[in-house]
Amino acid sequence: MNFIGKLESAQQKNNSLLCVGLDPDLERLPESCRQANEPFFTFNRALIEATADLVCAYKPQMAHYAACGAEAELLATIDHIRENYPEIPVILDAKRGDIGSTAKKYALEAFARYQADAVTVNPYLGGDSLEPFLDYADKGVIILCRTSNPGGADLQGLKVGDEALYLKLARLAAGAWNKNRNILLVVGATWPAELARVREIVGEMPLLVPGIGAQGGDIEAVLKAGLDPRGLGLVINSSRGIIFADSGKNYVPAARQAALKLRDEINFFRN
Amino acid sequence: MNFIGKLESAQQKNNSLLCVGLDPDLERLPESCRQANEPFFTFNRALIEATADLVCAYKPQMAHYAACGAEAELLATIDHIRENYPEIPVILDAKRGDIGSTAKKYALEAFARYQADAVTVNPYLGGDSLEPFLDYADKGVIILCRTSNPGGADLQGLKVGDEALYLKLARLAAGAWNKNRNILLVVGATWPAELARVREIVGEMPLLVPGIGAQGGDIEAVLKAGLDPRGLGLVINSSRGIIFADSGKNYVPAARQAALKLRDEINFFRN
Repeated sequence: MNFIGKLESAQQKNNSLLCVGLDPDLERLPESCRQANEPFFTFNRALIEATADLVCAYKPQMAHYAACGAEAELLATIDHIRENYPEIPVILDAKRGDIGSTAKKYALEAFARYQADAVTVNPYLGGDSLEPFLDYADKGVIILCRTSNPGGADLQGLKVGDEALYLKLARLAAGAWNKNRNILLVVGATWPAELARVREIVGEMPLLVPGIGAQGGDIEAVLKAGLDPRGLGLVINSSRGIIFADSGKNYVPAARQAALKLRDEINFFRN
Repeated sequence: MNFIGKLESAQQKNNSLLCVGLDPDLERLPESCRQANEPFFTFNRALIEATADLVCAYKPQMAHYAACGAEAELLATIDHIRENYPEIPVILDAKRGDIGSTAKKYALEAFARYQADAVTVNPYLGGDSLEPFLDYADKGVIILCRTSNPGGADLQGLKVGDEALYLKLARLAAGAWNKNRNILLVVGATWPAELARVREIVGEMPLLVPGIGAQGGDIEAVLKAGLDPRGLGLVINSSRGIIFADSGKNYVPAARQAALKLRDEINFFRN
């Protein structure tokens, strides 16, 4: 089964469009985790146990591990999911982008070293820079399209002919670049009008939507703008709102409660 | 001294615009390195010893280390340069790009964990995504502008109003984004006409130019198009052409000879 198939199976099994971002931060970890041998893995494992029946994917963000040399804990986290919840796909949020032989190395990092099911990538270097990722036909390649941050429009919003750059990108991603049907796009929850325009272009392509919660994205607006005609096609990410729902010793039940609430809110507006 | 100052001092001291890319590849390493405890570090250290009087910078590309979990050897390589050749700046070629709190983590990765002097970044996410890097005023932030690969034009070459996207980017980078005067741009050696247009926009800003050698960039054309009025402003990178000049036991003298030849060729056309 390819990545999109695996993702949609998990969405159906858990009746969920929710993706939980595993972005640990040493300063915000509960005391019990900070004192563990593997603080990030200890924290992540508990969160995974608490939420694996509520999510359609997990998304560890690499910078949080790379900043402090915790690659081994990232690997342990992904291994833990693969061994215990093989039906839940892992999206490695790396936003990689480079050319030729170097892009091949980044694809090896994501798909061989970490064995992720999908990776996020940056399209600025063009179609040939994405091919080494796209050639892994069973893996998902999630291309930045319209990002959730205020400055996202600096380049993405520039008008190219009669439409914005991010829409040109969406056309390339849904067309010429998508030979293996393994592309997804990132569109921030903070831009529902833009999300609707991307949806018009990409048909049933799944969209990864960060920016709910801490960044202020509105769930109802996101679903109205982004669902495909099947009521699918969205992967809605929340990181801090779930993993740091409580920063004390109740972090596990608090995370479960936050994930359950968000999954159900999404489903309320979905139906 | 800030990054650009350190870079220009090294350029003057070694009379060199040459940057050597430290991009080891296990399959291409000499037998003696492959059998060492730390194959990449062993290889890099020998190359550094052989070329440190000929270069203005070293540029390790992270993917080559990340693909096989060799972060410790990357760190050892950078430490070796900092301890033995503190006058030579290290550019960490990572092409990072993310938003807000995550970009801060990537900046920590480059500048705190690896203690690089500069890092390459991707501008697709806009100005605010670069601020966490730019805030390190003493460090260099090298933004992708016009990359050397054939597909580079897919997005970078799109017309925005009356000029291409990469020129709009160059204007932002030379203007509003450059409050700390620590921005540089990447322009591929394969596009000398585009390099000349970027030079017109950015004044004396240094440009990192990959694509000489294996990718076919022409030295004379690059210098004619890219030098600033002072005869500076270029950092010309070569990786494979130097580090794999000989893949057998003569790799050290062969790398020195290749670096010397390229430095002098650059200087021939520079004067």
